[in-house]
Amino acid sequence: MSLTIAVDAASGDGGSAPAIAAIKAVLAKDPELEIVAYGPQAELEAALAGVGRAAVLDAPEVIAMDDPPLQVLRRRGSSMFKAIEAVAEGRAGAALSAGNTGALMGMARIQLKMMPGCGRPAIASFVPCDRCRSEFCMLDLGANTDRTAEMLVSFAHLGAALHRAIKPEVAEPRVALLNIGEENIKGGKEIQEAGEILAASGLNFIGNVEAGALYGHAADVVVCDGFTGNVFLKTMEGLSSMIKNMLVDAFAANPVAKVGALVSLPVLKGLKEVMDVRKYNGAAFLGLNGLVIKSHGNADAVAFEAALDFTAKQLRQDLVATIRAELAAATAK
Amino acid sequence: MSLTIAVDAASGDGGSAPAIAAIKAVLAKDPELEIVAYGPQAELEAALAGVGRAAVLDAPEVIAMDDPPLQVLRRRGSSMFKAIEAVAEGRAGAALSAGNTGALMGMARIQLKMMPGCGRPAIASFVPCDRCRSEFCMLDLGANTDRTAEMLVSFAHLGAALHRAIKPEVAEPRVALLNIGEENIKGGKEIQEAGEILAASGLNFIGNVEAGALYGHAADVVVCDGFTGNVFLKTMEGLSSMIKNMLVDAFAANPVAKVGALVSLPVLKGLKEVMDVRKYNGAAFLGLNGLVIKSHGNADAVAFEAALDFTAKQLRQDLVATIRAELAAATAK
Repeated sequence: MSLTIAVDAASGDGGSAPAIAAIKAVLAKDPELEIVAYGPQAELEAALAGVGRAAVLDAPEVIAMDDPPLQVLRRRGSSMFKAIEAVAEGRAGAALSAGNTGALMGMARIQLKMMPGCGRPAIASFVPCDRCRSEFCMLDLGANTDRTAEMLVSFAHLGAALHRAIKPEVAEPRVALLNIGEENIKGGKEIQEAGEILAASGLNFIGNVEAGALYGHAADVVVCDGFTGNVFLKTMEGLSSMIKNMLVDAFAANPVAKVGALVSLPVLKGLKEVMDVRKYNGAAFLGLNGLVIKSHGNADAVAFEAALDFTAKQLRQDLVATIRAELAAATAK
Repeated sequence: MSLTIAVDAASGDGGSAPAIAAIKAVLAKDPELEIVAYGPQAELEAALAGVGRAAVLDAPEVIAMDDPPLQVLRRRGSSMFKAIEAVAEGRAGAALSAGNTGALMGMARIQLKMMPGCGRPAIASFVPCDRCRSEFCMLDLGANTDRTAEMLVSFAHLGAALHRAIKPEVAEPRVALLNIGEENIKGGKEIQEAGEILAASGLNFIGNVEAGALYGHAADVVVCDGFTGNVFLKTMEGLSSMIKNMLVDAFAANPVAKVGALVSLPVLKGLKEVMDVRKYNGAAFLGLNGLVIKSHGNADAVAFEAALDFTAKQLRQDLVATIRAELAAATAK
């Protein structure tokens, strides 16, 4: 298996700079990895000149963040299309892009196709919990807006496989369905039905969890529909950002507080580091015949490097093969 | 209209103490309000002896938090049942309870019945935003787990009426549907359909909002299904709590930080006060022929007082009549 990652180095908000810096950083620390970067050739070649194991392929066209996905799915000259094409044609093991999510998912589905036994792709990511000392895997984060029992069951298998690839030290990740608390209105019938199937699935299925319990690391793999997952993720990002701003405001408010802020600086820095969402950058598109990873559009070099690390782990563990085996075993049951 | 609130003073986690302290506090500051407290007579009478405008009615039975709602709906001797009964029989204008949500909702539906033109009740609450300098109203927070266009439209009217009652200074609250970001997969068809109806509804409908934008006060009334709303609320509570614990941890971690914490104490206290979720205690059950308000089960005296204030505002604005007029106008369109 080749440890080659195809990087769309042109579609993020920050242009190619974050991708270039991240590519240099990962190649320096990972002697087995190879990178093929897609984007404006002259610019990338100048930036990556002399960097071993980094190739550049010209892709003059860039998919914009606000391009309607359905209209750009077949732009073969774009850096996004070409990066996925490298995976489809076996020249790379995974593709990473910080571009338009809808376009990336659409292109991935067209070029890589769904894996047998998997009706829908899911977007999965790791989320900090337990005072940021651990993480759990959550999916779907927005690839689908509807919810059937079959989809939820399939997502459970996909998420468990991803968790094993990223955290192989956890042999049997605890899989749970996201649900709400009231006994008499517990979830819809799809969730109940999915629960019954998962209880007999061979996965380490622990039942339902509430959103509030997730931050106590109540489960390793949390399964929900893409609408709910997306709301969860955006709520987390919005609230974290508001609290961070309030801390900054509060310390800037008065002179005594300013002294407090100075003395507290190491603490706040430590907290900031622990809470640094850039470390959790990278969402895996699961269920396809190939690895495609989405970085946040506004990723800086640190965040892009985290997404490359996340990609390299999936590639090294041959996640596609693992998922294929997992789904085949589940279907055979 | 009588300004009498029927208080279930026995069903919260903390027994009757928080309710008693809160009742004394609101009666002292609001000279028009009257309270009837339901619970263990001797205990309540001793605690409220000499307090004007506070009556006590014996209700020896307490609905437990883990009682299956369907099994306790007709326990007529319970403090919860009797408080709602007072509203149903016109002896009180609103009922407040810190007890079992499912049981409270079930009893409220049975005794008060749904309002004409309203198929389902919704649970609504105010959520802090804009660095906690303002709030928005969100519903449904968990009364229903399914989602139809009609339900969402009805919730929009209910939420707008509640917003006007609590914040009459905002004449035309901005109403939005909670949705997710990707253009190609924007919401389900129910949300799209609801959006079309709301655009012609006469409400100040501003379209879709994403969860992340809510903290920037992107809308005054945010409408979603009860599953999504409940996940939103629990995520917010879980994450706030984790961040608060991390701040405490961080400041306790080393001696220099401890000095920082001392100097920063006023700032952290101010922040804590601004972020005090107890101030937002109180969820309104909307769509019924009567006002029923749910307090957090673990409310202390401060939180219970906030829920009483929230209840008094709805009562004073005659929210039930407002909603009835709002729904009649919407149906006549």
